[in-house]
Amino acid sequence: LNVRSRSYDWSGVAHGCTRKLGMKICGFLQKNNNLDEKSRIVGPFNEQPSSKTLLARDNERDSRFGRTETDFSNLYARDLLPAKNGEEPTVQFLLELVDILTNYVRKTFDRSTKVLDFHHPHQLLEGMEGFNLELSDQPESLEQILVDCRDTLKYGVRTGHPRFFNQLSTGLDIIGLAGEWLTSTANTNMFTYEIAPVFVLMEQLTLKKMREIVGWPNGDGDGIFSPGGAISNMYSVMIARYKHFPEVKTKGMTAAPRLVLFTSEHVCPLCVQQLHMFLSQSHYSIKKASAALGFGTENLILLNTDERGRVIPADLEAKVIDAKQKGYVPLFVNATAGSTVYGAFDPISEIADICEKYNIWLHVDGAWGGGLLMSRQHRHKLNGIERANSVTWNPHKMMGVPLQCSAILVREKGLLQGCNSMCAGYLFQPDKQYDVSYDTGDKAIQCGRHVDIFKFWLMWKAKGTVGFEKHIDRCLELSEYLYTKIKNRDGYEMVFQGHPQHTNVCFWYIPPSLRGVPDSQDRRWRLHKVAPKIKAMMMECGTTMVGYQPQGDKVNFFRMVISNPAATRSDIDFLIDEIERLGQDL
Amino acid sequence: LNVRSRSYDWSGVAHGCTRKLGMKICGFLQKNNNLDEKSRIVGPFNEQPSSKTLLARDNERDSRFGRTETDFSNLYARDLLPAKNGEEPTVQFLLELVDILTNYVRKTFDRSTKVLDFHHPHQLLEGMEGFNLELSDQPESLEQILVDCRDTLKYGVRTGHPRFFNQLSTGLDIIGLAGEWLTSTANTNMFTYEIAPVFVLMEQLTLKKMREIVGWPNGDGDGIFSPGGAISNMYSVMIARYKHFPEVKTKGMTAAPRLVLFTSEHVCPLCVQQLHMFLSQSHYSIKKASAALGFGTENLILLNTDERGRVIPADLEAKVIDAKQKGYVPLFVNATAGSTVYGAFDPISEIADICEKYNIWLHVDGAWGGGLLMSRQHRHKLNGIERANSVTWNPHKMMGVPLQCSAILVREKGLLQGCNSMCAGYLFQPDKQYDVSYDTGDKAIQCGRHVDIFKFWLMWKAKGTVGFEKHIDRCLELSEYLYTKIKNRDGYEMVFQGHPQHTNVCFWYIPPSLRGVPDSQDRRWRLHKVAPKIKAMMMECGTTMVGYQPQGDKVNFFRMVISNPAATRSDIDFLIDEIERLGQDL
Repeated sequence: LNVRSRSYDWSGVAHGCTRKLGMKICGFLQKNNNLDEKSRIVGPFNEQPSSKTLLARDNERDSRFGRTETDFSNLYARDLLPAKNGEEPTVQFLLELVDILTNYVRKTFDRSTKVLDFHHPHQLLEGMEGFNLELSDQPESLEQILVDCRDTLKYGVRTGHPRFFNQLSTGLDIIGLAGEWLTSTANTNMFTYEIAPVFVLMEQLTLKKMREIVGWPNGDGDGIFSPGGAISNMYSVMIARYKHFPEVKTKGMTAAPRLVLFTSEHVCPLCVQQLHMFLSQSHYSIKKASAALGFGTENLILLNTDERGRVIPADLEAKVIDAKQKGYVPLFVNATAGSTVYGAFDPISEIADICEKYNIWLHVDGAWGGGLLMSRQHRHKLNGIERANSVTWNPHKMMGVPLQCSAILVREKGLLQGCNSMCAGYLFQPDKQYDVSYDTGDKAIQCGRHVDIFKFWLMWKAKGTVGFEKHIDRCLELSEYLYTKIKNRDGYEMVFQGHPQHTNVCFWYIPPSLRGVPDSQDRRWRLHKVAPKIKAMMMECGTTMVGYQPQGDKVNFFRMVISNPAATRSDIDFLIDEIERLGQDL
Repeated sequence: LNVRSRSYDWSGVAHGCTRKLGMKICGFLQKNNNLDEKSRIVGPFNEQPSSKTLLARDNERDSRFGRTETDFSNLYARDLLPAKNGEEPTVQFLLELVDILTNYVRKTFDRSTKVLDFHHPHQLLEGMEGFNLELSDQPESLEQILVDCRDTLKYGVRTGHPRFFNQLSTGLDIIGLAGEWLTSTANTNMFTYEIAPVFVLMEQLTLKKMREIVGWPNGDGDGIFSPGGAISNMYSVMIARYKHFPEVKTKGMTAAPRLVLFTSEHVCPLCVQQLHMFLSQSHYSIKKASAALGFGTENLILLNTDERGRVIPADLEAKVIDAKQKGYVPLFVNATAGSTVYGAFDPISEIADICEKYNIWLHVDGAWGGGLLMSRQHRHKLNGIERANSVTWNPHKMMGVPLQCSAILVREKGLLQGCNSMCAGYLFQPDKQYDVSYDTGDKAIQCGRHVDIFKFWLMWKAKGTVGFEKHIDRCLELSEYLYTKIKNRDGYEMVFQGHPQHTNVCFWYIPPSLRGVPDSQDRRWRLHKVAPKIKAMMMECGTTMVGYQPQGDKVNFFRMVISNPAATRSDIDFLIDEIERLGQDL
């Protein structure tokens, strides 16, 4: 009973925003939530406190979902399969959970639902209305477990909400979600064909298709799915080193001359907006790789960019020549296809010319921009990618695949295995009854490897190549809409001029108090604080989320990105209205 | 219609085994499958071909699950949310999928179901009865997508089956599964508190609890969940290097003296059984780390072990002294707590004495054995672990958490951040409205990081510490049962003597034709082929799966491991019967 009453104590939710920030700021959401209470579908997030049993639904819902009225308060994990007679409680428990999840999914796409219900760490740690994060020695009932599941979602962030623009990965693809549910039910490991036959083949076919799209003849080459773009980029550096200095594998970095790597000076927002650091100067993941792999960050040379954030090829060549004159060996160039802040595409063809001239490994980091390869209209922005030696491409970003799904593609076959295999002799045992060349463990730096392929494969089946193309074209149209809307609008300044190359639109909102004020240190400092303040209010209200960061000598600006298939022009309009509503008195 | 008829063409399944191997070998399964056809619950895997609509169920089932009779043949991904009127098809699609998944779960625990329905890569690639792995440009209907989901499960391996013993990670925990379904629905990223507030706090609390269990005062220290044990071990090497030679981060490995690492000579089965290589000689993941991080595999020094596979401390000390005399710097010792083949626990306390004496970083790789810390009866096997500088512990192995869930724990706070942060100045922006010390991106080598914590947290809530303890004690009892059953049984030889330390039981099955035959090169060669042959037949029959590998000069033997909560004594008996049935004529 205690659990039950706690679980329905949602009274603080709908109006909490008002309490925190006053009627004026959050009037919008309150209004919409009121509307929502009368709407057809009554989800748990708008239900009133009730003394009814915890998980009962009104009769209409019950007959529709056909779940039995199971009392979970006397059931425990130990009563589920593999327990004797565990089938019925197992299925009922999973169906009850699925009801929670499908309600969450429906509300996520409902614009009258908040994007988040923000609380500070200390508030969540103190325990919110019966939601206790502490672990205990004794088991809790399945009823409490289901309540914990609801609360976990309640205090989280709806990354699939049409107005969630905070990350490069947004949206909740239903096919991808189904794929993840199946993946976790299958619960296997990509290490060998023996235990993941279907998934291993799906990975192989999908990687080949991706290599064809990159433009490598017949889709030949190699590749693997890895736990994210940073690890994919790390693979590329390792493989480049193995190709040119294979002895490093056995003898270490001291066996090689002083090797240098090149990448854009352009900041990754991960390093600033999210990690709240100022004036950092290199691409995060390549820098992390240079430290981890024993090159040292000082041997990562940063390349100058133009006003749009694109690497200047002449600067690369000058720095290559300079490095060689100092006796260093230029090993690796990273060309970014879709930088995280500006959405800039480095000129790959011109960079490839230089790499060929000086025999340097060319990697294209298309973690964010790789998706544009699927669009006939936009893929020209990656012209020259077919000349790369390796490519990072994260379907979990622009293509809307659930986190995580990142591929490292390699043009030359055999390097991935040569680099990562730990068994020099290759003394094959003629033991296994199947063709062991399908086993993948030898290529990976991981031992166990999560199945990241299935959701992506299933989405590709369900949408077709044309479906991905449509999604990408639509997102780019939306960013064009935003750009056109604000470029000449009162109170806005663009961070760089010209149409967006990717969906990134970077801008300052200038509150009325700063308009017409001449540039000065003081004005810059005041402007620097505008975006963070607006963002904090957005989060308190829960209406929308968008990122911001500084860049070089530019003070904090908003970085809008669109990868969410649920977003429409009305959501872009909403974002702008919201910025103005929250920012007008700053 | 084409799709529909294809989808029900299961005729080859139940009797395929008979076709392949003859009545004698696979009579068992056929009998059980026949029984199963008459059983109460009729799952899709035993249904006969039918001309009814693809996804319809008999009336009793329909009323129970209450799904509407949706015709998915005219529905496509584009009809689901966020499409207009997409709610109903979305929920129906997900419920239909959940029906497939819950049927799969029920059958997984049903011993009359096969563990797998083996096919060779070329068979699956050619397309099985309408299951086409190729991707196409045009979308497929949701009906076909649901069929693809079924087929994916059908041709996969049931890693949760009570008779699946092939990996260190086995079993299908229902609470963990629920946790994964929720995690993928939430679809967020562990990078910042901002977008994963609840999960970030759960991770923090759970890591602290794990450090308390390791035995560090107040659970102080640091840690992070990583994509598997190999990456966790890689973290430990990176942190050790950063602690002793922080300049390597900026200047690279050439800034340090020649550093050497130490680990057991004892083979990881990943390198042999699964990667079919012979006589490899070091722990896979530490070796991978030494190559990737720029140490070079030649600077990994292998330690001699006793007959049970435990590192001999005196050998460590001798090799440390020898390395120092050569002018090398001993940096890092890996002590294995639960080796993958023998389940051996290195004597941590004695190794810690040596590490303290020579100021060497002590890492304990408890990926497999860490779970025993949860058991009051067995945790003494890791005595001394509280003296380690870092610990790898994979809840996805012995604790039954779904893949993947691996923690790296670090005793000294700050090192993880210092090692992996890429922003030298630490110029905090006072931007965010919350306490940004909760953000985790700075500690990780990844940028995006999958939420691996929730399933584990939920299982801990649902089982309590006592639930994990019970599971672990039970698995160890089962391995003791197996050991006792076969140690003096005709036709068995143990690979090493004495009771198992972990659940690993390593043994040769000697077919009647080899019993009493004196040792010779020829006999060893014939024995070497026995386990692979039996394994291949097991897989063809689909009755059970267990690993095998050679070790040093020992020819192929079976390595039985038990981490599956569904396994019982009857399954152990079944395995032994099956080995004898399949092996008696070899």
